Amino acid sequence: MNNINSICASVLSRIKPCDAEKTRLAALAHSIINRINAIGKEEGLPVSGKLVGSSARGTWLSGEHDLDIFIMFPPDVSREYLEEKGLYVARKIAKGAQSYEERYAEHPYINAIFDGFEVDLVPAFSVPSAAAIRSAVDRTPFHNDYVISRIKGLKDEVLLLKQFMRGAGVYGSELKTHGFSGYLVELLIIHYDSFIEVLRAACNWKYGTTIDLEKHASVAHKDPLIVIDPTDPARNVAAALSLDNMCIFIDRACEFLENPSEAFFSVQVPEPLDDASFRNTLHARGTSLIAIDFRAPDVVEDVLFPQLHKMEESVHEMLERYDFRVYNSSIWADERAVILFELESAQLPDVKKHTGPYVWSGEHALAFKSKYRESNTFSSIYIRDGKYMVEIQRKYTRANRLVESEITKCGLGKHVALSIKEGYRVLENDDILSIRDEDFRRSLRKFFEK
Amino acid sequence: MNNINSICASVLSRIKPCDAEKTRLAALAHSIINRINAIGKEEGLPVSGKLVGSSARGTWLSGEHDLDIFIMFPPDVSREYLEEKGLYVARKIAKGAQSYEERYAEHPYINAIFDGFEVDLVPAFSVPSAAAIRSAVDRTPFHNDYVISRIKGLKDEVLLLKQFMRGAGVYGSELKTHGFSGYLVELLIIHYDSFIEVLRAACNWKYGTTIDLEKHASVAHKDPLIVIDPTDPARNVAAALSLDNMCIFIDRACEFLENPSEAFFSVQVPEPLDDASFRNTLHARGTSLIAIDFRAPDVVEDVLFPQLHKMEESVHEMLERYDFRVYNSSIWADERAVILFELESAQLPDVKKHTGPYVWSGEHALAFKSKYRESNTFSSIYIRDGKYMVEIQRKYTRANRLVESEITKCGLGKHVALSIKEGYRVLENDDILSIRDEDFRRSLRKFFEK
Repeated sequence: MNNINSICASVLSRIKPCDAEKTRLAALAHSIINRINAIGKEEGLPVSGKLVGSSARGTWLSGEHDLDIFIMFPPDVSREYLEEKGLYVARKIAKGAQSYEERYAEHPYINAIFDGFEVDLVPAFSVPSAAAIRSAVDRTPFHNDYVISRIKGLKDEVLLLKQFMRGAGVYGSELKTHGFSGYLVELLIIHYDSFIEVLRAACNWKYGTTIDLEKHASVAHKDPLIVIDPTDPARNVAAALSLDNMCIFIDRACEFLENPSEAFFSVQVPEPLDDASFRNTLHARGTSLIAIDFRAPDVVEDVLFPQLHKMEESVHEMLERYDFRVYNSSIWADERAVILFELESAQLPDVKKHTGPYVWSGEHALAFKSKYRESNTFSSIYIRDGKYMVEIQRKYTRANRLVESEITKCGLGKHVALSIKEGYRVLENDDILSIRDEDFRRSLRKFFEK
Repeated sequence: MNNINSICASVLSRIKPCDAEKTRLAALAHSIINRINAIGKEEGLPVSGKLVGSSARGTWLSGEHDLDIFIMFPPDVSREYLEEKGLYVARKIAKGAQSYEERYAEHPYINAIFDGFEVDLVPAFSVPSAAAIRSAVDRTPFHNDYVISRIKGLKDEVLLLKQFMRGAGVYGSELKTHGFSGYLVELLIIHYDSFIEVLRAACNWKYGTTIDLEKHASVAHKDPLIVIDPTDPARNVAAALSLDNMCIFIDRACEFLENPSEAFFSVQVPEPLDDASFRNTLHARGTSLIAIDFRAPDVVEDVLFPQLHKMEESVHEMLERYDFRVYNSSIWADERAVILFELESAQLPDVKKHTGPYVWSGEHALAFKSKYRESNTFSSIYIRDGKYMVEIQRKYTRANRLVESEITKCGLGKHVALSIKEGYRVLENDDILSIRDEDFRRSLRKFFEK
């Protein structure tokens, strides 16, 4: 335990924002909020600025430099009014930024860089309770209030847990990560009272473990981990957490308690896989690799990654349907997107067994027999287990030809489908080395070594 | 219908025994029965001879030349007495034969060649009813009586149906064939009244079709075709018929009625597959072939074939368990036995995904992790769907090595196991051409072309 304490102290000294950083952040937040309030007054708009998120709660990690500032509207204005005027105010403020762009979640909002800080300027309704929200972000101020009222004395614990989860690669609730959100981390600390107690508890978590701080759950959830929102009895704060990220956290927690080390808090960045190692690895494994390479659609990650995962799943399903067995698959994206499939074999026999109807199925049997009697088959029509069978030429004996020919028939998200329509390459084995992006090569190492 | 009639007439002229054949058979049966009765009298044994089977009923196909002669004992003698004295009498008679051998079914019996006829001399109990039988063969005299009393005027129909089934390869109830027995053919003719009516009915047969001539069924059967024995309400005469042979008959029956031709009555003997055709076929199909070649154990077919099928099934199951996908398999036997497997591929990647326990499974999880943490694996231990996974070296990447190493662990029948213990070869692809037996080569063609 002494050991754990000294590890935590050492980690904290790295991740805890220093006073200078705190002061800079507070000053920036203060000035932006003042600007919002001033614009409201000047132009007669019913708006007020509010700092939310980890920066409002004092639970941000040193260097994170993310500010969430809400432009609050009264709950009785229309959605159109909020969207129009909210964006108007945000743009005015963003004009003072180093750079900014408009982004789209449920509403449009602005992401701007001020003085090295990434600031989200988000219009929201100031509703009377979390149960009365008009858009998803309206919940945040309630989270803010709940956490601020209970987090005193526990902020360091929050920082440790966040950094531990970063080290495990499970921190962040975006759809790219499917991990633990900052709010979820804060609730776990409030519930279990310390970083170490969260780890101890996690060692006994199972699929379906439920945490209900306010004992007010009102709906059954089927998620791997269920943490009832203290501000909304019907909501699971951990709904975005994937089973595997929950399990990685369980595993890391037990491992750390068994053999504590500072390494658990470090983000591991794999070395890029070079050409020779790629060739050696693939040869040693004896499998085949197929990559679909195309321009990544220009949309935010929360839109892009679900579409890439959908494509990964639907191409996987198609490969298996055509008898190609998939060992592993993954997605990667930057300017381009690459979907990788490791196959037992990229080639299948020409012959394929084709099962027909039961012998006693009347017209179906006749139709099957007349279709295959005259065609060029490997075998005559025969009977197995009461059904007609025939051995025919397989349509696709090579996985790359299958993907090239049938990819547009796979279920693809809107933006990915458009990008694929523009063009794509299907690469096999060594051809994949033509992708030289360093981050892709890191992901290749992770693909093989896990 | 005229066409069918003329086809049947033409077939009948080939398959119906001529008067000379009938006379020769009757004379031989008469003399053997007389000998049995005479020996009984001379030696004070309570025996009498009885001709049973198709030769007794006048429903044998020309050239079949099989005689079943029973040596009947009173039902109150002991099993040992019957076996000892029955074999004694049979041996005395067989001394007059060209050749003979002792065989074993439920009792020992003698198979002898007299004057080109194959004669089975079988001791049996003369029981008062089929319900009171003491051994399986005791039923036969009751079948004999039932058929003889009803078959008058229908014998030609029986011959046609038997020959039609021979043409389809489904005649014979031995465990090698799993087809229709002679008695079953006779019952179908008695029930449906003619060859053509049996075919018409068969076109509407389904799995579980039940025929109960005496409307006295007393037990539920789960067989594909159920024909209740008129002499035993608990017995299904078609119990040995396989689903696929039933279906082949259904299919042939419909095809014949649609396009009648004498070809349906001819046994198709495939040409042996020569070396070049074998190579071309295998290359075109793109699959791999594995053959297990060993000395066929010296036992009767009814013992040998079930053991070969058991071996086929258990090696098939093992191949699939080790991820080798089996497209087709078959057995062949003469002096040697060969089990063939057509595989999607005879080679698999070195890497194999190995699934461990759930992350929350406590000791199991610890044991899995400690086992694979230090060993030489392709990947680190990772998590998928809540379970630990690791990628390890596959034990057998080649199907022939698997079979060579693990065949003795497969479920094998007694005689086959002994023979395998003596030695066997596992041949792959072109090596299989070292088996030059012509009948094996015929079976190879059938294996591919069906």
